Amino acid sequence: MQRLRVAFLGPAASFSHQAAIEYFGRSAQLTPCASFADIFSAVQENDADYAAIPFENSTNGSVVQTLDLLADRQHVYSDVEICGEHYLTVHHCLLARKGTASSAPGSYDFITKLYTHPQAWGQCERLLSKYFKGVEKQDVSSTSKAAEIVSQDETGQSAAIASSFAAEYHGADILEANIEDKDDNTTRFLIVRNIRSERTASSYPPNQANAGSAEKDEQSSAKRKTLISFTVNHSSPGALADALLVFKTHGQNLTSINTRPSRIKPWHYVFFVECSQTPTIPSDQAVSRLLQDLIKVTESCRNLGTWQEQIS
Amino acid sequence: MQRLRVAFLGPAASFSHQAAIEYFGRSAQLTPCASFADIFSAVQENDADYAAIPFENSTNGSVVQTLDLLADRQHVYSDVEICGEHYLTVHHCLLARKGTASSAPGSYDFITKLYTHPQAWGQCERLLSKYFKGVEKQDVSSTSKAAEIVSQDETGQSAAIASSFAAEYHGADILEANIEDKDDNTTRFLIVRNIRSERTASSYPPNQANAGSAEKDEQSSAKRKTLISFTVNHSSPGALADALLVFKTHGQNLTSINTRPSRIKPWHYVFFVECSQTPTIPSDQAVSRLLQDLIKVTESCRNLGTWQEQIS
Repeated sequence: MQRLRVAFLGPAASFSHQAAIEYFGRSAQLTPCASFADIFSAVQENDADYAAIPFENSTNGSVVQTLDLLADRQHVYSDVEICGEHYLTVHHCLLARKGTASSAPGSYDFITKLYTHPQAWGQCERLLSKYFKGVEKQDVSSTSKAAEIVSQDETGQSAAIASSFAAEYHGADILEANIEDKDDNTTRFLIVRNIRSERTASSYPPNQANAGSAEKDEQSSAKRKTLISFTVNHSSPGALADALLVFKTHGQNLTSINTRPSRIKPWHYVFFVECSQTPTIPSDQAVSRLLQDLIKVTESCRNLGTWQEQIS
Repeated sequence: MQRLRVAFLGPAASFSHQAAIEYFGRSAQLTPCASFADIFSAVQENDADYAAIPFENSTNGSVVQTLDLLADRQHVYSDVEICGEHYLTVHHCLLARKGTASSAPGSYDFITKLYTHPQAWGQCERLLSKYFKGVEKQDVSSTSKAAEIVSQDETGQSAAIASSFAAEYHGADILEANIEDKDDNTTRFLIVRNIRSERTASSYPPNQANAGSAEKDEQSSAKRKTLISFTVNHSSPGALADALLVFKTHGQNLTSINTRPSRIKPWHYVFFVECSQTPTIPSDQAVSRLLQDLIKVTESCRNLGTWQEQIS
């Protein structure tokens, strides 16, 4: 059987790469993409079977690039659907060039420069204020890039804030693990596929759907989530409330709401509503019935996919 | 009478500065703040009477820094309330050092380096691809900073993308005006005050509220908007739908919904609902009655302010 082709947001050893490995395993053929749009194009064009794409972070909120692609304003990603989710807890390490840890144990005085992604500084303030006041700090485009830079620094006087996965990938030493201030900083990834692909399943891992009866029972008790996007006529009072009411009428529990500009006209929005179904209702039927009613009270609406809830 | 003290997001000649001048006039004492948090602190501590703070952009969506401060997770800005709004259409110009425009009319060949804020490159792609392919482009922290740099560049070989207001402020020449790709890119600013301040009015301009009867009638026909934040118990199915239903029950038209992480626990959110009231209903009463019901179905809720709608 041909290996699964999985796209993720690069560079190699990024948190997206780690999420893709955790979800699909190391046997999948994992390909970094340079941008969020490249990931969606790869799935739409069937160049990838699946993709893992960051959707929201428990501290920083929604990933607007992903919402903008799901909004699909130009109708170019009409075959992309969500079929799963994965939670990745963000742990940071302090890394340095291979061999550095053993040559200067227990002290960070040898470090004269630090590298990481801008967002990571704020997530590791405790360690930075304890050991690295006044040390030069250089922003780079990703934590993986930071790990790469210090692993190649022959002076051995620099350190990076990055994941243990990036340390392993770039062959760097971990000086200190779990240096993040908050231990529950988690990113939720969506797993997407091409709705027309014969190589993929509408629920991943696909074997769950075909499993034996005992396993099937266990799976069927898990909630299923659905993401739906819609636009409403803003000049009609109550249009948004009417659209949201449809979810309640159909017994769907609203779990989150996001909005992005429609970019058709100012102050006109695309709404994203995530809802969950109790396992007693056959979810495909429930969602399609909901959509039949939602169409009546919205300008446009789209079912972006239904998947089995994972626990954070 | 002491001049009004108005805080805005700096540096001087920023779009926030321009919004503050358009709203309060040049007679106000305008003070730049280094961060969003500094603006909220200035109002909370009564160091400023009012502040203008960006809330959303018609292309890029919500300003999460403002939402995070309105969420007020630490209860440190309890006296800050919204009392107005202002729409600023974002126009960009190509600027250079004073005297440059007349010495090389009709040609940009003398320009070897461009400066602007990262977001502005993407908003002026038509001009950039026509004249500046291959020209060095340097990111800076604001468009105003870009204007300042080129106005001081003695070689006269650099240009900036910034507002005409920044050109005027820094004494630069405008080589070309309105170079933005979209002519309706608009930022909405919120005007905030201290609820306990005796120097400010709960609606600005205050003279509107005290105007003669003819003007009063005209004002009273304008819709009023309210922003309310709340959190719900996510483990209770239907909690979010129930909260949103309260707005409908009280005849409020939902105009936008935003969410930010609560940062109390992962996947727990602060919701921001903006609603508008028809002018026939006395809005203070309507909002307070709505809040009485909203309290019953939410974990926490707060009225962030009511103000008169402006037209974009």
